Amino acid sequence: MTIHYPNGQQPRKHYSASRDLPTPHQSIYAKRGMSLEDEINHSNQYYLANHIAVIHKKPTPIQLVKVDYPKRSAAVIREAYFRRPSTTDYNGVYKGYYIDFDAKETRNKRSFPLKNFHPHQIRHMRECVDQGGICFAFIKFTELDQIFLLPATTLFKYWDQQSDGGRKSILLKDISAAGFQIHYRLNPRLPYLDAVDQMIANKE
Amino acid sequence: MTIHYPNGQQPRKHYSASRDLPTPHQSIYAKRGMSLEDEINHSNQYYLANHIAVIHKKPTPIQLVKVDYPKRSAAVIREAYFRRPSTTDYNGVYKGYYIDFDAKETRNKRSFPLKNFHPHQIRHMRECVDQGGICFAFIKFTELDQIFLLPATTLFKYWDQQSDGGRKSILLKDISAAGFQIHYRLNPRLPYLDAVDQMIANKE
Repeated sequence: MTIHYPNGQQPRKHYSASRDLPTPHQSIYAKRGMSLEDEINHSNQYYLANHIAVIHKKPTPIQLVKVDYPKRSAAVIREAYFRRPSTTDYNGVYKGYYIDFDAKETRNKRSFPLKNFHPHQIRHMRECVDQGGICFAFIKFTELDQIFLLPATTLFKYWDQQSDGGRKSILLKDISAAGFQIHYRLNPRLPYLDAVDQMIANKE
Repeated sequence: MTIHYPNGQQPRKHYSASRDLPTPHQSIYAKRGMSLEDEINHSNQYYLANHIAVIHKKPTPIQLVKVDYPKRSAAVIREAYFRRPSTTDYNGVYKGYYIDFDAKETRNKRSFPLKNFHPHQIRHMRECVDQGGICFAFIKFTELDQIFLLPATTLFKYWDQQSDGGRKSILLKDISAAGFQIHYRLNPRLPYLDAVDQMIANKE
């Protein structure tokens, strides 16, 4: 789940408590370290600023219900709801390749629960792979502070095995074996395009 | 401008008048024909359903201010504002190529005003072109009911000429000469990937 997409999660204090415009995430999370999303966004800003890649997080889709249009000031959304995204959260272009991925965190220490993915996200990634895109999942084991890039094709294999009585999660050791571990660096914080380069090489 | 991004435009009746969830655009616009956005979304649905391309419109970015979390029901956004998108509205993947474009409508009959583009959209398209993406503008002359795909590189040329004392708009005849006219069809309504095929051919 992305942090912008509550549906049923606990209230987010920085929204419900504050009537001011939200501060950027890095300050929201300053006290408890960055979320995976913030780390990815920072890395994408670095890649963009250095003309290495153009990858952005998509805005959270909103269902508008009521919008006021006060005179001489900006439109105010007075009633709206979070909608389930129909795609993954991140996409863009790198070296001419279409890049598409989603980012997930788990507090588990031994395996990643597949229920973190929605069927429509898997379907979207299949469609992108069929069109020649480079698709993967960013998976962070927060308690272990370990981050992996798991190629979508590997994710599909475990996803499909569920319906054949397979396990509902992917073991860390399997993610570690089939994926690419991303080690923190200063700039970019998450140098994940190095792993993407390997995926591109394997693809060709 | 996308219809989801008012900033200063007239109130949208179907938002301000209705407290119900908005109906899909095709019904909102049924009485006055489809907007260019609706026509593009329909075409993208066709391309997706037929495994030809995966191209989606990005959600409109929203600045959340206040979100309520009622017990046992979905989070309700109580105060939020439309933010200016930092990229174009549409992107995706087709035959392994990264596709990125924006759609603009004008009521003019002789030329397309460049002020319809924001500098950040031009910058984003330059970055995507530098990464090997296929970028263009969807331009509709609503009064003439003529639609063109204008390659981004051509758009950049006219955009840059403004600062050298060039005109602030692109003449229809120049768009017609440098771009690709899209003629309505039943399915997809706007077969614009035919023009993209030519852009890809010219690229190689």
